[in-house]
Amino acid sequence: MPIEKALVVGTGLIGTSAALALREKGVAVYLSDVDAHAVRLACELGAGQEWIGEETDLALIAVPPHLVGERLAGLQKEGAARAYTDVASVKADPIADAERLGCDLTSFVPGHPLAGRERSGPAAARADLFLGRPWALCPGNETGADALRLARELVVLCGANVVTVGAAEHDSAVALVSHAPHVVASAVAASLAGGGDVPLSLAGQGLRDVTRIAAGNPLLWRKILAGNALPVAGVLDRIAADLASAASALRSGEWDDVLDLLRRGVDGHGRIPGKHSGPVRDFAVVQVVLRDRPGELARLFNAAELADVNIEDIRLEHSTGLPVGVAEMSVRPEDTGKLAEALRFHGWHVPPVPR
Amino acid sequence: MPIEKALVVGTGLIGTSAALALREKGVAVYLSDVDAHAVRLACELGAGQEWIGEETDLALIAVPPHLVGERLAGLQKEGAARAYTDVASVKADPIADAERLGCDLTSFVPGHPLAGRERSGPAAARADLFLGRPWALCPGNETGADALRLARELVVLCGANVVTVGAAEHDSAVALVSHAPHVVASAVAASLAGGGDVPLSLAGQGLRDVTRIAAGNPLLWRKILAGNALPVAGVLDRIAADLASAASALRSGEWDDVLDLLRRGVDGHGRIPGKHSGPVRDFAVVQVVLRDRPGELARLFNAAELADVNIEDIRLEHSTGLPVGVAEMSVRPEDTGKLAEALRFHGWHVPPVPR
Repeated sequence: MPIEKALVVGTGLIGTSAALALREKGVAVYLSDVDAHAVRLACELGAGQEWIGEETDLALIAVPPHLVGERLAGLQKEGAARAYTDVASVKADPIADAERLGCDLTSFVPGHPLAGRERSGPAAARADLFLGRPWALCPGNETGADALRLARELVVLCGANVVTVGAAEHDSAVALVSHAPHVVASAVAASLAGGGDVPLSLAGQGLRDVTRIAAGNPLLWRKILAGNALPVAGVLDRIAADLASAASALRSGEWDDVLDLLRRGVDGHGRIPGKHSGPVRDFAVVQVVLRDRPGELARLFNAAELADVNIEDIRLEHSTGLPVGVAEMSVRPEDTGKLAEALRFHGWHVPPVPR
Repeated sequence: MPIEKALVVGTGLIGTSAALALREKGVAVYLSDVDAHAVRLACELGAGQEWIGEETDLALIAVPPHLVGERLAGLQKEGAARAYTDVASVKADPIADAERLGCDLTSFVPGHPLAGRERSGPAAARADLFLGRPWALCPGNETGADALRLARELVVLCGANVVTVGAAEHDSAVALVSHAPHVVASAVAASLAGGGDVPLSLAGQGLRDVTRIAAGNPLLWRKILAGNALPVAGVLDRIAADLASAASALRSGEWDDVLDLLRRGVDGHGRIPGKHSGPVRDFAVVQVVLRDRPGELARLFNAAELADVNIEDIRLEHSTGLPVGVAEMSVRPEDTGKLAEALRFHGWHVPPVPR
């Protein structure tokens, strides 16, 4: 039996976005939040109607990690749904809370949609927030088949991709690919605080990329890191050790140790899935110089469209000073000649694309 | 007296690009390289003619850092130019070599154009490689006024922005904003090598940003790091110490120490100049969902052009799975309403832009 009625508890960005996605699929959605304003706003956004105790097929608990357990216990007492899932970015602690509070674990499927956004709140919600994103589901031994089926259906209705993984493995995974990298980006950015402006006037795109996520909300990230402290600490220790070794290798002139780290970095980078799970480096890059004026990108992409070339990715490389930038367009290697030719035909300066 | 004749020694990416820029400005350019093929290719690209000993106004020495000193000594013996400058990414060692070899330091202006590209060789050269980029000049006490004037003129002719800075300060600066961040990105990427694929299936844009530069050529970067070893080691030690402290703070639950690092990261990130020296965060972000098909970006930017809104920056946020992406367009805050309205009018889904 599919999901006909869903309950969303916590109408923040994630909860409201899921509610909007379910509404688009014709599911009856009921909304609940301790903040009456948030519920009203979510209702006004068309995310559903306020919950007044209706029984539902599935309840999505979209509250902060430390509140998941008690909210689950309360909802199960009320018999709010046949199955329950949450969206906490860490899984071990909420599951432990649920056990401690005597929740029924057969109807609970721990979950985590990986839909990172800098913004928050129902106003930032969108039905397509989860489109094509991974959504981890972490069933345990006790998890019932019916609950897991309903949770999977929720993920599919939201347009996300189910990644089934154990809770502990999930927490180690997000420590590795998200939480620890955030701390590292913060440490690199922190090394820029204080000191003069001359060094920063020599900064390029690489530094901006490495430090971009360091702009995230510190209070929010303290919570996230606190909830996954040990796995994150483990990854940070390994990275700190690599950096300390690199520093001493540089001091003692052991260049091959430095080379080894750089090579391991190339290998690791190559393992990161790019768009559509294809490795990023499978694309060739075509560069073109842009003037900084309205319509420049439109002209560029019109030329690309005439060549019937699909731009897989684009990066605008900015620089302090003159109002120009370099657009780096990633395309399928076999399309580079076609695109470069078309752009040159339309008067763009396109340097030779290296083999 | 302005630059009428220039000599470019070393016709790789940097030398050939500078030669092309000078040619566009009507400067007579002579080319020299130990690799006869490289010279011929540069000539065929229109970068100038092969040097056979003509006297010139300025010689640009675009050879690897460890060869700058001896090349400078040789050229000065031949009286090849009135002034000399180089492009080495580190400055202290080449200057020390020049002194050791008894070069005339009054006619030598150490320089470093910050035009980062993954590619190399004359085939990748472009006259606009330096457009709007910083170009460090590191005159010493001995540097003559005429030589400095000619070096500045070269930078201006290449369309770059002069950043005058002492050699030692330059090397510390690039260690801070370029060399150390590269090693850190490698260490984060290296932490992904080995292990299963599940963690990587949960990777998002943030990890791709942090590790992008880790894809750089390890042999090239070993050279760069070896040439600036001590300043880089100093920065790496500070970052490693911050990460080790964060790890132990996470283990002992000292969340405020973690918060302090995150806050210092936000401060440091805010100091990085964005496009046109304006801080990146001065722009507001408008998001829109893209289908993965040719012409999609053209349609998007046509709509933006009709609204007469200038896209300051764009980021395509990809995700494994469905063929869709989210385009995040940075625009001046006062343009967000206008752009969102125009995009919605043309049928795009644009979520509310948070204040």
